[in-house]
Amino acid sequence: MLKIALAQMEVRAGQPDINLEKMLKFIEDAKREESDMIVFPYMAVLSDIFDSTVINPSLSRDCESCNEDILKASEGITVLFSNFVDNLFFAAKNGKWIDSSDSYELFKIRMKGKRYKIVYTFENAEYIADLKFREKNPDFCVVFSSAPFVQCTTKGRDYHIGEHTKALGCPTIYVNCVGTQNKGKTIYPFDGNSTVYNSKGEIVLRGKSFEESLLLFDLGTVDSMPPIVEPEEPEIAEVYRALHGGLKHFLSQIGMKKMVIGISGGIDSAVDAALYTKVLGAENVLLVNMPSVYNSATTKGLSEQLAKNLGCNYMVVPIQESVDYTVRQLESTPVTYLADGSTHNIELSSFVRENIQARDRSSRVLAALAASFGGGFTCNANKAETTIGYATMYGDCAGVVSALADLWKYQVYDLARYLNDTVYGREVIPQGIIDIVPSAELSTAQNVDEGKGDPLKYPYHDYLFRAFVENEDQVTPEEILQWYADGKLEENIGCEKGLVKKYFANAEEFINDLERWWNQFTGIAVAKRIQAPPIIAVTAHAFGSDYFEAQGCTYYSRAYKALKAKLLEGTK
Amino acid sequence: MLKIALAQMEVRAGQPDINLEKMLKFIEDAKREESDMIVFPYMAVLSDIFDSTVINPSLSRDCESCNEDILKASEGITVLFSNFVDNLFFAAKNGKWIDSSDSYELFKIRMKGKRYKIVYTFENAEYIADLKFREKNPDFCVVFSSAPFVQCTTKGRDYHIGEHTKALGCPTIYVNCVGTQNKGKTIYPFDGNSTVYNSKGEIVLRGKSFEESLLLFDLGTVDSMPPIVEPEEPEIAEVYRALHGGLKHFLSQIGMKKMVIGISGGIDSAVDAALYTKVLGAENVLLVNMPSVYNSATTKGLSEQLAKNLGCNYMVVPIQESVDYTVRQLESTPVTYLADGSTHNIELSSFVRENIQARDRSSRVLAALAASFGGGFTCNANKAETTIGYATMYGDCAGVVSALADLWKYQVYDLARYLNDTVYGREVIPQGIIDIVPSAELSTAQNVDEGKGDPLKYPYHDYLFRAFVENEDQVTPEEILQWYADGKLEENIGCEKGLVKKYFANAEEFINDLERWWNQFTGIAVAKRIQAPPIIAVTAHAFGSDYFEAQGCTYYSRAYKALKAKLLEGTK
Repeated sequence: MLKIALAQMEVRAGQPDINLEKMLKFIEDAKREESDMIVFPYMAVLSDIFDSTVINPSLSRDCESCNEDILKASEGITVLFSNFVDNLFFAAKNGKWIDSSDSYELFKIRMKGKRYKIVYTFENAEYIADLKFREKNPDFCVVFSSAPFVQCTTKGRDYHIGEHTKALGCPTIYVNCVGTQNKGKTIYPFDGNSTVYNSKGEIVLRGKSFEESLLLFDLGTVDSMPPIVEPEEPEIAEVYRALHGGLKHFLSQIGMKKMVIGISGGIDSAVDAALYTKVLGAENVLLVNMPSVYNSATTKGLSEQLAKNLGCNYMVVPIQESVDYTVRQLESTPVTYLADGSTHNIELSSFVRENIQARDRSSRVLAALAASFGGGFTCNANKAETTIGYATMYGDCAGVVSALADLWKYQVYDLARYLNDTVYGREVIPQGIIDIVPSAELSTAQNVDEGKGDPLKYPYHDYLFRAFVENEDQVTPEEILQWYADGKLEENIGCEKGLVKKYFANAEEFINDLERWWNQFTGIAVAKRIQAPPIIAVTAHAFGSDYFEAQGCTYYSRAYKALKAKLLEGTK
Repeated sequence: MLKIALAQMEVRAGQPDINLEKMLKFIEDAKREESDMIVFPYMAVLSDIFDSTVINPSLSRDCESCNEDILKASEGITVLFSNFVDNLFFAAKNGKWIDSSDSYELFKIRMKGKRYKIVYTFENAEYIADLKFREKNPDFCVVFSSAPFVQCTTKGRDYHIGEHTKALGCPTIYVNCVGTQNKGKTIYPFDGNSTVYNSKGEIVLRGKSFEESLLLFDLGTVDSMPPIVEPEEPEIAEVYRALHGGLKHFLSQIGMKKMVIGISGGIDSAVDAALYTKVLGAENVLLVNMPSVYNSATTKGLSEQLAKNLGCNYMVVPIQESVDYTVRQLESTPVTYLADGSTHNIELSSFVRENIQARDRSSRVLAALAASFGGGFTCNANKAETTIGYATMYGDCAGVVSALADLWKYQVYDLARYLNDTVYGREVIPQGIIDIVPSAELSTAQNVDEGKGDPLKYPYHDYLFRAFVENEDQVTPEEILQWYADGKLEENIGCEKGLVKKYFANAEEFINDLERWWNQFTGIAVAKRIQAPPIIAVTAHAFGSDYFEAQGCTYYSRAYKALKAKLLEGTK
């Protein structure tokens, strides 16, 4: 009978005061539950901090002070934790440090009259304990973790730890934090999913993902507990939990309780509306529809229906008068060239007029409303748009945070269906929004009632862009064009068969499309991403702080140019 | 007689095609000048690339192809260069690779009937050649460099290389590139300043800073050339050249030839106007004054005077009507809470109204004008404002690039005087702009004619913020408050004596001010910097890609809180 408590706690980055308070509360709870031992996630006192500017001598001293407080709190219990002090690992019992390590990563401790040999390791789930410890016959293994969520990590983690645990031949306790950490432009949710594995490496206990909890179990019964069979679920379920948990913790961390969302009647803003309403509550969400003359009755109606379904705050702020005023004012104000006194007038192209609409919505309306409503406003961009910068700076690519910018368009649709079917259990996102052609409705060329919309053919471009951004082999136009020439493109990028032929009549059309987007991806889109809001990361390839890119580096290789010349020659 | 050419070339990041063409041209020029040898900067083919997304198999293959082209071009000359291939260093002569290295960093080559022993090293000016090579009696040393400018580097470099060269006992050839490289949010100018040091470590030849040039010299005469005595100049001179060179190369790299600048009659926008006019030419600069009812006749007049002095394009676009429209529209449009059908109206605070003005200027007027004028618009923020986020998102902290955001306010004034006195040699920035109180003129509380302005007391806050940002010891409120208590604050942060007493009547006032700005620096200002434009870096502590920071990490240490309590106790 050894009662162990796993403290799956939210760790606040760089905040030892808040984390200590939380740890002391968890210790109290564990004592109340008569636990013999409590284990905390990796770096629970400080967090596995991403912000190097925070680390300074005064902070280090505070981390040391926290150790003393935890030591005092260990009266009547054994506390295992790690801290940003000395050797990172600490074990306290009855107000005393236990220092009986045979070696780094193996220590012995007497609890309830028995001496336990414990193997421990930090963080990285891929190498848990060294298998040489098998000879020492450890009683159990502890993995102190601080592991951000990326899609499918839990499965990978279970596999690795499971295999190691089996080889080690004793139960493993994996304890991970929840919450978020951010590197400025990228926000990483931490999934928790703390787990107890039996000696065969099977899962016998699991903490809820993205929620704090104190997991209790008896070490003696681990190998007789039935393995947990987790229900099959679609991939998007895990992504939903990551976005929900990530937003909840991040917004709480920056003290933001309310959110304004511009809703267009399109899919991205609708999904954001449903997501934020779950995170913040309908009373804390203000949905704003901002029609111009180009917005159809269809999308205006769908926006209103969405707002009604969610029961949020709602308002309609038309932008046409303001846009017209801007166009009139700028075109009628003369520019004087003071070197010679000549004057001329500026002319606004249709492209400039489109961008004026987008900025009017975000920078004029939403930004002012957000401050007055007492919160921020969202950026609703998805990953396809973000990849090639199909968005207006200070317009639709503005906002406090981008919840969907690590999701391809097809994932946004998956998420819409998941929100309706599973999260809400009813049609909060009107089916019309799911069915309508994606369109920015910035001109008559994007008339949704005529089936016209964005220049992106998502069923193909989602996959082309995914090859640019997420392929470990760093795919460039050279590979894409070679695959096209070899007839292997659809297979290699993973899109539906037949699309290339459907969308492009010949090599010239294909190449024009490829170069258009590659130029944007490595050109203007980089400039836009530099000033874009932070993104909730759900993959290991999220744009932002860990995606290193520079302006002005668009490049086509010699082999690309040669193949292009050959293919274009062939079409003439 | 060994004629050596130093190719101080602009290296374009990740563009082997452009760089190769440039290298071949330099080789031709060197041959025309009858040089025996030409030396290129570090990684001249690819650049010492900052953008890891660019590096992929197809790029590597192109780098290898470039080697072959350079080899061919070496007919009649010896070419020393480095490339992103194999062992980085290459020597080609008469179409053949020279492979006679004794060891890494030492090789022999026969030129004009004599065998030369050459020591070489890469990039980092702090360790040039290993001094063990002294025993080998090298003929000269080559430092292949790709070193970004930060203030005072040239002096430090001269000292280090000079000392090493003296110890090595042979001349050193230091060759550096010009141009810029960017890491997304940070733009680093490369200063060139290629140098030939004689055997005593004295400078005998120097390339112009921030400009391409082919430097020619005869190795045999190096030790008999007179050492160069460079004229003393103010620190701001070097900063001006870095900003000028950085802007010129960066704008050319992203293909931007024209710029719109909002000018308020204040110092920051005036300095930017004078700077960009030098970089792009007056005909390519459009200055825009955008007054509201809060803008004084004084600043409107100063703006016009500035524009006249520079001879740029100029226009006045008043914003009051548009701002009034926005306030009226948003306050009169009802919000419906759809959960219960209740309605209410939003109220815009004076703070929100101030921000509406700032966004109206940048996101409504400047963004549209920039696109129509055929360029971008500038962000005129300085480092003090950037540190604590004294700027409006999508308002004055928007733009293509921030030229002044690595300069404290006092440096902006230094630069203004330098532009007038030295660069232009006449008063282009009206003295009135230099003399007026700094003010955003967003409300009656900032009336410049009554001497009212920004909440920042620059003569003190410039130095307080510099301690937060640029001090290697990572100064936090704990140290600041301790210095205040010890009466050593002014001395330790470097501001004028007597200011603390002048600005703060007691400890409470001092602490309120300190916490106000520390909260902003580590709070909302981080959110603003995440979405701010890229910054031209002139220090090693520029905000941006190399300044790692996260949102939600504001912290006060235990010692700070204790000292604060003690000091406040003392004042009661």
